[in-house]
Parts: sequence; C-alpha cells; structure tokens
Amino acid sequence: MPVKSYTTRPLTPGVYGPLPTFFDDEQEIDFVSYKKHLLLPVCMGSLGEASHLTPEERISIIKFIRLTLDQEGMQNRAIVAGVGGSSTRESIRFARDAAEAGADAGMVILPAYYAASLNADPEQVIQYYVDICAASPIPILLYNFPANSAGQDMSSDIIEEIMRRAPNLCGVKLTCPGSLCKLLRINSSVQNDPSLTSSRSHSFPFLFLDGLIADLTPWMTSGGHGTVSGIPNFAPAAGVRLFQLCTEKSKRGKLSGEEENELRMIQDTLSRADVLAVPGGVRAMKYALHKMHGYSLAPRRPLLPLGDEEGEKYMRVFKPMLDLEGSLEKRVLGEI
Amino acid sequence: MPVKSYTTRPLTPGVYGPLPTFFDDEQEIDFVSYKKHLLLPVCMGSLGEASHLTPEERISIIKFIRLTLDQEGMQNRAIVAGVGGSSTRESIRFARDAAEAGADAGMVILPAYYAASLNADPEQVIQYYVDICAASPIPILLYNFPANSAGQDMSSDIIEEIMRRAPNLCGVKLTCPGSLCKLLRINSSVQNDPSLTSSRSHSFPFLFLDGLIADLTPWMTSGGHGTVSGIPNFAPAAGVRLFQLCTEKSKRGKLSGEEENELRMIQDTLSRADVLAVPGGVRAMKYALHKMHGYSLAPRRPLLPLGDEEGEKYMRVFKPMLDLEGSLEKRVLGEI
Amino acid sequence: MPVKSYTTRPLTPGVYGPLPTFFDDEQEIDFVSYKKHLLLPVCMGSLGEASHLTPEERISIIKFIRLTLDQEGMQNRAIVAGVGGSSTRESIRFARDAAEAGADAGMVILPAYYAASLNADPEQVIQYYVDICAASPIPILLYNFPANSAGQDMSSDIIEEIMRRAPNLCGVKLTCPGSLCKLLRINSSVQNDPSLTSSRSHSFPFLFLDGLIADLTPWMTSGGHGTVSGIPNFAPAAGVRLFQLCTEKSKRGKLSGEEENELRMIQDTLSRADVLAVPGGVRAMKYALHKMHGYSLAPRRPLLPLGDEEGEKYMRVFKPMLDLEGSLEKRVLGEI
Amino acid sequence: MPVKSYTTRPLTPGVYGPLPTFFDDEQEIDFVSYKKHLLLPVCMGSLGEASHLTPEERISIIKFIRLTLDQEGMQNRAIVAGVGGSSTRESIRFARDAAEAGADAGMVILPAYYAASLNADPEQVIQYYVDICAASPIPILLYNFPANSAGQDMSSDIIEEIMRRAPNLCGVKLTCPGSLCKLLRINSSVQNDPSLTSSRSHSFPFLFLDGLIADLTPWMTSGGHGTVSGIPNFAPAAGVRLFQLCTEKSKRGKLSGEEENELRMIQDTLSRADVLAVPGGVRAMKYALHKMHGYSLAPRRPLLPLGDEEGEKYMRVFKPMLDLEGSLEKRVLGEI
Repeated sequence: MPVKSYTTRPLTPGVYGPLPTFFDDEQEIDFVSYKKHLLLPVCMGSLGEASHLTPEERISIIKFIRLTLDQEGMQNRAIVAGVGGSSTRESIRFARDAAEAGADAGMVILPAYYAASLNADPEQVIQYYVDICAASPIPILLYNFPANSAGQDMSSDIIEEIMRRAPNLCGVKLTCPGSLCKLLRINSSVQNDPSLTSSRSHSFPFLFLDGLIADLTPWMTSGGHGTVSGIPNFAPAAGVRLFQLCTEKSKRGKLSGEEENELRMIQDTLSRADVLAVPGGVRAMKYALHKMHGYSLAPRRPLLPLGDEEGEKYMRVFKPMLDLEGSLEKRVLGEI
Repeated sequence: MPVKSYTTRPLTPGVYGPLPTFFDDEQEIDFVSYKKHLLLPVCMGSLGEASHLTPEERISIIKFIRLTLDQEGMQNRAIVAGVGGSSTRESIRFARDAAEAGADAGMVILPAYYAASLNADPEQVIQYYVDICAASPIPILLYNFPANSAGQDMSSDIIEEIMRRAPNLCGVKLTCPGSLCKLLRINSSVQNDPSLTSSRSHSFPFLFLDGLIADLTPWMTSGGHGTVSGIPNFAPAAGVRLFQLCTEKSKRGKLSGEEENELRMIQDTLSRADVLAVPGGVRAMKYALHKMHGYSLAPRRPLLPLGDEEGEKYMRVFKPMLDLEGSLEKRVLGEI
Repeated sequence: MPVKSYTTRPLTPGVYGPLPTFFDDEQEIDFVSYKKHLLLPVCMGSLGEASHLTPEERISIIKFIRLTLDQEGMQNRAIVAGVGGSSTRESIRFARDAAEAGADAGMVILPAYYAASLNADPEQVIQYYVDICAASPIPILLYNFPANSAGQDMSSDIIEEIMRRAPNLCGVKLTCPGSLCKLLRINSSVQNDPSLTSSRSHSFPFLFLDGLIADLTPWMTSGGHGTVSGIPNFAPAAGVRLFQLCTEKSKRGKLSGEEENELRMIQDTLSRADVLAVPGGVRAMKYALHKMHGYSLAPRRPLLPLGDEEGEKYMRVFKPMLDLEGSLEKRVLGEI
Repeated sequence: MPVKSYTTRPLTPGVYGPLPTFFDDEQEIDFVSYKKHLLLPVCMGSLGEASHLTPEERISIIKFIRLTLDQEGMQNRAIVAGVGGSSTRESIRFARDAAEAGADAGMVILPAYYAASLNADPEQVIQYYVDICAASPIPILLYNFPANSAGQDMSSDIIEEIMRRAPNLCGVKLTCPGSLCKLLRINSSVQNDPSLTSSRSHSFPFLFLDGLIADLTPWMTSGGHGTVSGIPNFAPAAGVRLFQLCTEKSKRGKLSGEEENELRMIQDTLSRADVLAVPGGVRAMKYALHKMHGYSLAPRRPLLPLGDEEGEKYMRVFKPMLDLEGSLEKRVLGEI
C-alpha cells in the first residue's frame, strides 16, 4: 500500500502533559472541558483513557486538538497521540489514523492481554515495535510502563535493539523501575555508536522522556530531555519552571544558591505529589481537575468517579503542589 | 435504544473448547483451518485471540461458525463468544454484535489496562458486569482469569454480588487460584438462597465451569458443570470421556474399579498436559495443531509462531495426551 | 556422626492445628496460655512464630507440650514441630533438636532469603529436602507455602522427585494455588508406582495434608488425609466434625441428606472464615484467642498486637464460625 | 540492662563491598579465601550469606576481619556487619554480638517470613528499626532490599519517620525501585529540617548509600554518599575510580572532557555488569571469584555451586568489567 507522505512538527525537549479525555453525564466526550484544559499551554500530549475510546473518537480528538491549537496561534505545537492497540495490526491502524488526523508522533505501549506469552520470547516485543515503526507514517515513541501493561518491562538491551532496527522510532518514555539506569546505559551506547539515534527517519533529536516527574533533576543531568508526566495537568507552571531550572543548570554548569533552593523545593513538592498520585490514577486526576476547574468528573466505565471521601484525601495530598502552582503561575506562565 | 429480542440456545453442562482463530500467511483469518477444526464435535466456544480481531472479524467468525454448525446438522449446538472489550461500552457493543451474528451467550473477562484502578475499588468490577448483563441481548458468562487480566482476581463475595444484581448472568468460568474453594462457597450460598441462580433471565441452569481441566474430577463432585479448557482442542475424546465418567460417578454414586482407574488415568494425563501447556499459551497450541492437522501456524502479531526447538518440546510434553487421545478417539467420538 | 535411634508416634489422618506461641508482656513465652490452649484436644502441631524463637525456646516448647500431653493421658498423640531454618544446616539442627526434645515429626518450609537464587535452579530445592530428610532422626513433612517463603511454589514434579529421593519424607502439606491439582497428579503417580509412598523409613502411611480447610471436602474425595489449618485453633469441634463427615462419606459412599447438609454448611462456614482470616495472620488469630479465652495477645516483635478497631473487624468475620463452634462443641468434643 | 559503651570508627562516604563468606568442601568457613579477598583494599562490609551462619560464626568472622585489617595497618577502617535477624529480638542480639566482636556499625534488612503481616501495618516496620536502634550499642544502617525480603519496600515517608524516631540510625542503603526519587525526597526533607540527620547518636554524617552501582553517577549528584555494591568484589579499582570521578565532579563543578568520558565509560561498564549479575546472585559471584582467584566455590546449602555452563555465561557477561578492571588496577589501587 502506498503510504501517504506527512510533514510533522518536531518534538522538542520539555514537559509534556498527557491530556485526560473528559466525558459528560452520558459518557460522551466532553469537548468543552477538553478545550478549556487544552489551553493550558503545556498540554500537548494525549493518553487519556485511550483504551476506552473508539477508533473514530481517537480521530475526532486529535482533529479537535489540532484545530484548537491552531486557532490559538500554536501552529507549531506538536501533538503526540497514544496509538498502542491490542495487536500489531491495530496499533498500525491507530498510527495511520492519527497521522491522517494531524498527530505529529505516536506513542506505543505494549498490549497487556498476552503478557505471559510476550514475556516468554522478547523477540516478539522487538518485532512489535519494528513492525509498527515501519508501517507508521509518523514517528513513534516507545512507552515502557509495566503498571499498565500487565507487568511487562523492557530492558535497556531490548530498547537498544529496537532503536537499532526501527529508524522511525523517535524517542522513549520510561515509567519503570531502574529507568535512570536504563537511560545511563542507552546513552552510553549512543556515545559509543552515534548511529543509534542519528540514523532516524525524522529530523528532530531522539528524545529520552522521564515517565515520572519525581526524578526529573537527575534525569536531566543524565542526558534526558524532559518528561511526560501527569503532574503538569495540575501544576503546569511548576512543571515548566522545574524544567527551566534543570536546563539552566545543564547550560551554565551551576545555579545560584537561590535557584538551587528553588529547584530542590519544586522537585521535592512535585515528587511527593507524583508518588502519592499514582495509586489514584485517572480517577484522582479527574476529581482534582473537577474541583479545580469544574471539568467533567467521570472517567468512562468500568472506571467510576472517585467518591468525595477519597477524593478529598487526594486534594489534601495535592495541596502543597497546588499552593506552589498558585505562587508560580503568574510568573512562569507569563513568560511562555 | 429498543433491544431486539433474541432466542438463544441453552448452554448445557459439558466440555467446552475455546476455539483458536487461525490466520494465514497474510495474517488474515484462515477459515479453511477453522472449518476443519470446528468439525471436531466438542468445539463450540470461541476465545482465540479475540483481542487481535476487529469488531467486523468477530462478527464474521460467529456467523461462519453458526453456518458451519447448521450445515453439519448441529442446529442445537450453542455458541459462546468472548465479548469482553477494553471498556464497558466496548463490551456491550461486542455483546450486541455477537447476538446479532448468532452467538447464544457472551463471555466477559475484565479489561487489563486500568487493573490497578479497578482493584482499588471492586464496586467498579461489580458494576462492570451489571452494566454489560443489563445491556446484552444474550446471557453472559463471567470469566475470571487473572493471568490474562493483569492479575485481577474476583473473590467469591464479588462474584456472588454480581450474581445477585445481574439476572442476565448465566454462569461463571473460574481459571484462578482457589477456584474450587470459590465454587464451594458460591454453591453453598446458592443452597441457602436459591434465588441466587434461579432468578435468571434465561431458562437453562446457571453454569459453574472449570477454567482448567486439571481438577475437573473434584470440580464435578463439588457441584461444577464442566469445563472450558484448551485441552479439548487437542484431545476432544479424552475430555469428553473424562466428563462422562465424572457424570456417571455423580449419577451412580460410584464407578466400577475399572472405570475408576480409567477416570484417574485420564484425569492425570490431561492434568499434566494442562499444567505444562499453560506457559506455551496460544503459540504452543497452534504449533501442536499445525503438526497434528496442518492448520495454519501463526498467531497474529505481536505473537510470533513458536520455533521448532521450543515447539517440539511441547510436542513431547503433549505426547502422553495425544497417545491417550488416539486410543479413545474411535470409541468415544463414535458415541457422540 | 552416629545418629541416635528414635521411636516416634505415627501421624494419622485428621485435623491438625498449628499452635500459636503465646508471649507475655515481657515478650517471654507464656506457658500458661499455651497449656490452656494445648488442652483443646485437636491441638497437636506447632508452627506458631517459629522464626521468632531461639533454638533453646524451640526445644523447651516441644518438651513442654510432650509433658503436658502425657500428663493429660495423651501419650499417643504425636507432635509435629516446624523445623525449617534459614539454611540446610540450620534445618537439620532444628530437626535433631526436635527429635531429642520429643517431637515425632518435623515440618519444613523453604527459606525465604535467597528465594530468587533458589527459583533459578530447582535442583537446589530438591536437594534441600533430600539433605534434611537424610540427616533428620524423625520423619519430615514437606510444607509448600509460597506466601511465607517469598513466593516459592513447588510443582508436583518437584515434590514427586523429593518423594522419590527422600525415604524419610512422611507427607506433604500444600498451602498453594492449584494444591488440589497437585494432589491429583501426585496421587496418580503413586497409583502407577506405589513405591513412591511405600518405600518409607517410617511405618505410618504417607500423608497428604491440605494447608487450608477451605476446600477440605474435595481434598478428602481426591485422596487427601486431612488438614493442618489455623481454623481449628478457633473452632476445633467444627474442624473435627467436618473431617468426620468427609471420612464417613468416603467410607459409606454417600451421606444422608441431613448429613450432607451439615457437611456443606460446616464446610461453607469454615471456608469463609479461612479465606477472610488469611490477611489477618497470626495477629488476628491472637486477637481472637485473647478475646475468646484471655490468652496473651502480643506476637513477638516486629509483629505488633492488632488494634481494637481492626481486631473487632475480624471478630465480626469470625462470628458465624464461633456460633457454629458453640453449637457443635458439646456434641462433637464429647465424643472424642 | 546496662549497655556497655563502644567507641566505633566513623563510616565515610565511598564504595563498600559486601564480602562474600567462603565455605570449604565441608561447608565450614574458609578463612583462607576470606583473608585473601579481604586484603583487596575496598573490602570492608559484610553481607555474605548471613542467613546461613550461626550466631557464633557471625562473631568469629567479625573478629577475624578486625584482626586482619589491624595486622595490615588498616586500624581506621570501619567494619559494617549485617545484623538483621528473623525478629526484633534476634536482630538486637546480633547487633550486640557484632559490637562486642568489633563491628563499627550494623546493617538491618526486614525479615521475610511475615512479610504479608508486616505490610498490613507499616507501624510495625517503623517500630522494628526504632527498637533495634535503641538497643544496639553501635549505629545501624537501614537496608531496603525488596528482592531479599519477600518484596517489602519501604517508602521515603516510612524511612523519614524512622530517621526521626531513631537517633542511632546512621544511614540508609537503598536497593529498590525508585531509590533515586526516595533519595531526592529524603534529602529535601533534610534541607527543610536539618535535625533529621544531625541529631544523631554518632559523630559521622548520615549516609545515603546506593544499593546498586548501576546509577551511582546521578546518585552522587543527588546528594548520595557512595554505594554498597557487589561489583567492587570483582572490580574494586573500577568502583573506586568511578567514585573518585563522581566526587571530583561534585567538587569542581565539572570534569574535563577526558574525565567525563572515563566516568561515562566506567559507569556504563559497571552498570551493565551490575544488572546482568543480579539474577546470578551469590552463586555467580562465587563462581567468578573462584575462577579469578581460586577462592572456594560453594555457597552454603540449600544454595549449590553454579555449574560450569551457566558459570561461564556469567564470565562472558563480566568480561568487559574484568578487562576494565585490569586496565585500572595498577593506576587506581596504587594511589590508595
């Protein structure tokens, strides 16, 4: 099949927020909440309940984001769309749909159903990414997240082999134990063999993205490029400021004492919120966004909205982060 | 939406074989292999790589099975179709599609992606089955299989609550640790409150199906009704004979010494094969069926065909079962 | 080293209660509680916090039990002592100490610390039991309990190999997923090769003991010999009655309708209590025994006594079992 | 009980090697191998098969190490001894024995047997360390290693609470997922409340030690003090050189390009060896040391020596590290 040619926006280092998908009382997509949330300037990814969406809904969401960004003058902002499906075929189909709809890159997690069979022979995992990268019109981010893929965890060796065999892979997002060790090893392999990241089918640099903002500081000093973290959905200014400070530190070698303190304080606050938010997942995030901005509360079923008792527990957990965000918002977001 | 009325065939106690779905060299469905396999008279279920199929393919497979069974004079044979999707919505859609295509019951496993969030509040799990049962035009089997649902394991209390709130639930299939304990407890609850299984929206008895044939003998003496096991895909005669002997024993109180020995020997042989087959999954099953009958070998990707070295390891493991099957085939299948 | 010769009491099929070890306010062994509890006639095992005891305390407890049983006229009652240590050496030492102190058999669980290394090569697990059985003056029960041995789970193949190579093994206690399947397979192997259990260094029959009372009914119809369960510590009469009914059923082929109902009701009540008690462990058991009989409450540290709030939750869970016990106590225990 | 007063050597930042314990053909301690190995100048810890040793053997090993170090003129080198037992009592006893025998600090891992009960109420875990620290005459290192403690993983909140309540805690060793995130959070808490580490019963600074050398570089830039890693048992020069370079980098703000390359190359080589060595555990380490130096091969049973086939697999894995070590040995160790 002749593959249509696509011009995609480059992905740049930075803080990416995986957008939730909002649903109204009839469980239909709530584009009104979506639009409001999207306008927060750090929102440019998409993972929100992808497995709860039809192929058609995935397309309509990407189109909507593109249109909204363009209307707001953000024509250069890239869109990353989750395109991992339940099989190689389905992921390829989602990647093609996403390209057609205007996404600039796809992000692919391993399917969970046959986790035991996939674990039994990692060649299948490698081939999965090779196949999808070969067939996708847009570059692909590898997403390693054992908690949402029935425990499957790709080693740095497996990831390097995929990098070697899939020129259309444009980066990795690591949300896994030992992620920093993996980054160190892969980066060292790249130093020894620059073709590992340079022979790419896309023009922007290969990205190493941290799946948790909790250790972004050492991630950045170890050669990382930013993070895709749920935290910027609540605290975009704090996330951006943390990234700025890390970048400054790399550039200038060191920060002033005041900046160093600010870096440490933001990192600490976001790290605590990040770790405590994980068990709450999409339900806690939607509860908080509902309370903060009035966005629609319900995930799609089988997930049910968080009750008030548990929800308020999370609000208390998030309070230091939200206070920090309040203090940073004007200063940081004004600059962007 | 007005729900069309469906007349479904009753499910009966017995040995159900979850049909594999065969794919040809282009990864398209191989109906030729399918038809050959289907004609093995104990094949009447369907779970084969459901997560690798499009909605349209799911429909076409059900229609094909119905047509083939009818052509072979098996108009009364019921079809159970896996209809578990990634969300409540998708499962309902699959159940409606399956009904429309001719399935007599649906089987629903929990979705894996948000396992952690679902575990955090089991009310979501209960509501999942309640919602699907309420919206499905055909009765639903609950399928508890932690290994393929990211470790989610429903307790007997949760299952009883679903039975209580979902009159369209027609049975459970338990492939989980402690399955026999769960069966004992649920059965005892039914004795204390017969409405638990009698207030059903379907006419046939509520079924307790063993997810492994490995302990079918005590399962049947504990009030179970049969099994949905991969083993009958290889050894239908042995599976049927085992079920016959268990049934006879229940009916007559005891078996002759010779029958008792046969029961024990078949149970033992199938139990060993069952336990050893589990790590091989669909890949080992397809390898064996390819060797035995020439059916197409490949699962859909990301699953890759088993290599010969590992495949032959499974053939050696299966040999006692296949020898047993050879000795029983003529005698048992002739009777059916 | 010349091994002293020991005459041990035979182990017989039945219901075994793993005695807790009671500690007073100074964390010293509370023999007063111990003696009261011991006199409940079904108490004849010992697993209570073995890992919290010194070698000397282990010896003193066995001597105390022997003395107390003898004083009460129970000279024929065998004592099973947990003798699993952290290494082969330590387990052998505990087995020799136990023999010297008067135990009739030892029970050995796998050590947890190097679980990953042991899993990597099961020959080590086999050799562990072979070594201990060869060096122990008293027969050994193999105890398979993944939850207390860092997840290590012995397959039926491994257990059979140990049976083959360790004539001093006198039985197995299975507290593991698929225990009934394992029993079926091992029993079938025994039928095909009776030497597997008959070539023993002890005179009583090889015992298959269920680690949970929750599925004792099918366990007994599948060739099992009884159970070592925590439940008889609370409800000895109910445990004994359940075992009587199971035994009667095996002997007479079937029970009267009334007996069948009683069997089912007791099995159900104990099964629910058993499953719900598991998460509470020794802390919940001690809380309940403290409330019921005034025995000392505290486990040894690091385990802390259960608080009242959580403790009362367990008391509610246990209530149906304790009510049942009250109704059976006079009738059943009077008969023994 | 009056606690004898001890003067202990301070622990300093650096690379600690957990000494294996060598056993001869009779499974007795092989002090000859031990002495040879000990003289490698970076060896000053001890974790080798502690759970396989008697209390008396633990004492004799500490005395032997102290004596040997003193004889070699290393009177100032501190000894850290693993003193974690199966209960609070036993750990306290081991800590007192270790102090008496000449250890300068103890290291305590959680006991594995009652992992489920301990997990159910983390207050028990906190109290465990508080009790041991209060009763130990020498300072205690907290050792968080889920793989060897049946999966128990202490959060940064739990660790901070222990720091707060146990002034005799002198450091932590983290061998766990998210270790770097934990370090960042704990360090930030220390910045906000310096009493967390300053109010200590010992005079040297509180130590944050990395349990894997695989991510030592970012560990050191995040406020860590070094590592206790098995890798220096094979490659002491490489371990020391890595630590030197990390320390230099912290001190001078940046390294020369050549040094930066050396740092990256050593980190990469050790990281790969570290990750691949983990599954081999003590068995692979002993195999390699046997091949390299002729030290005794056997762990204590139930662990068995690694066979040659698997052993050579590890030798190939370790080759780049051993080559690196060869090239560094003269230069680095000459300087110490």
